[in-house]
Amino acid sequence: MSLSMYQASVPVFVRMLDNLSRILELAIQYADEKKIDPAVLINARLAPDMYPLSRQVQIATDMAKGCAARLAGLEAPIYDDNETTFPELLARIAKTIAFVQSVGPEKIDGSEERKVTLKLRNQEVSFLGQPYLVHFVLPNFYFHITTAYAILRHNGLAIGKKDFIGGL
Amino acid sequence: MSLSMYQASVPVFVRMLDNLSRILELAIQYADEKKIDPAVLINARLAPDMYPLSRQVQIATDMAKGCAARLAGLEAPIYDDNETTFPELLARIAKTIAFVQSVGPEKIDGSEERKVTLKLRNQEVSFLGQPYLVHFVLPNFYFHITTAYAILRHNGLAIGKKDFIGGL
Repeated sequence: MSLSMYQASVPVFVRMLDNLSRILELAIQYADEKKIDPAVLINARLAPDMYPLSRQVQIATDMAKGCAARLAGLEAPIYDDNETTFPELLARIAKTIAFVQSVGPEKIDGSEERKVTLKLRNQEVSFLGQPYLVHFVLPNFYFHITTAYAILRHNGLAIGKKDFIGGL
Repeated sequence: MSLSMYQASVPVFVRMLDNLSRILELAIQYADEKKIDPAVLINARLAPDMYPLSRQVQIATDMAKGCAARLAGLEAPIYDDNETTFPELLARIAKTIAFVQSVGPEKIDGSEERKVTLKLRNQEVSFLGQPYLVHFVLPNFYFHITTAYAILRHNGLAIGKKDFIGGL
């Protein structure tokens, strides 16, 4: 079976978002055990002009839902971007997983040359489906999940790369 | 043209390693301007038990050369893992780009079900080519490049996500 647009997108999003959920659950336990206000972790950043943990999770989920929707020619669900707690972030991840799982391979496969348009910094940018997935969505998606991991790791959460990669 | 194992691997490695080189060149300038010993940046970590910048670059390049070689059924070049300066890290990236570019699509395409074996923590692990690329190499590759970026960003280098993603 040859690599398909579906195989390179939805199962990746589901697996990595599942891993991110487990990491956030470990962060909840950690905050509880160490008597850390969860908001401290949710608002933590690696640099003053980088986004905090909450925004990293928001953008990672945006990349996943936007990609599944655009490759399939569907409207992506709109979220309010107002999560301020771990349970709210976990709920956002869960609804993103449910949405991308609802978009079947028959909708995404064959989208290599589908025209995709998105707004980047108030500018419309057009891609074909394959470079959009391979050179825009995946690096952005991994960037924000890795940064979420790194923020928590930097703040003392005892996780390792196997938590990021998931079961092999 | 449908997504292929080659398109999902070598051009991704080349693009992201090029971006990483430019980020390291900015780090050289930054160290020079701020009178920071470059070794401080090269040995910087986000947590005491995370790898320093140099090791992040080493592992990212290992992922790229190992993947291109294994999917093609070739031996990967062996590096000494002894880089301690920015010019040495840049040379490692350059030779990795040259190696992965030397492996053509005719060698990598069709490797979806090729059996790939690697050692992970002294254990042999076998994959088929497609899950190896999609669920092992790409998350690891992006993890280490993002962490290299984050280490430098955390240490004050003025870079943004466009430096990580590259020209669109």
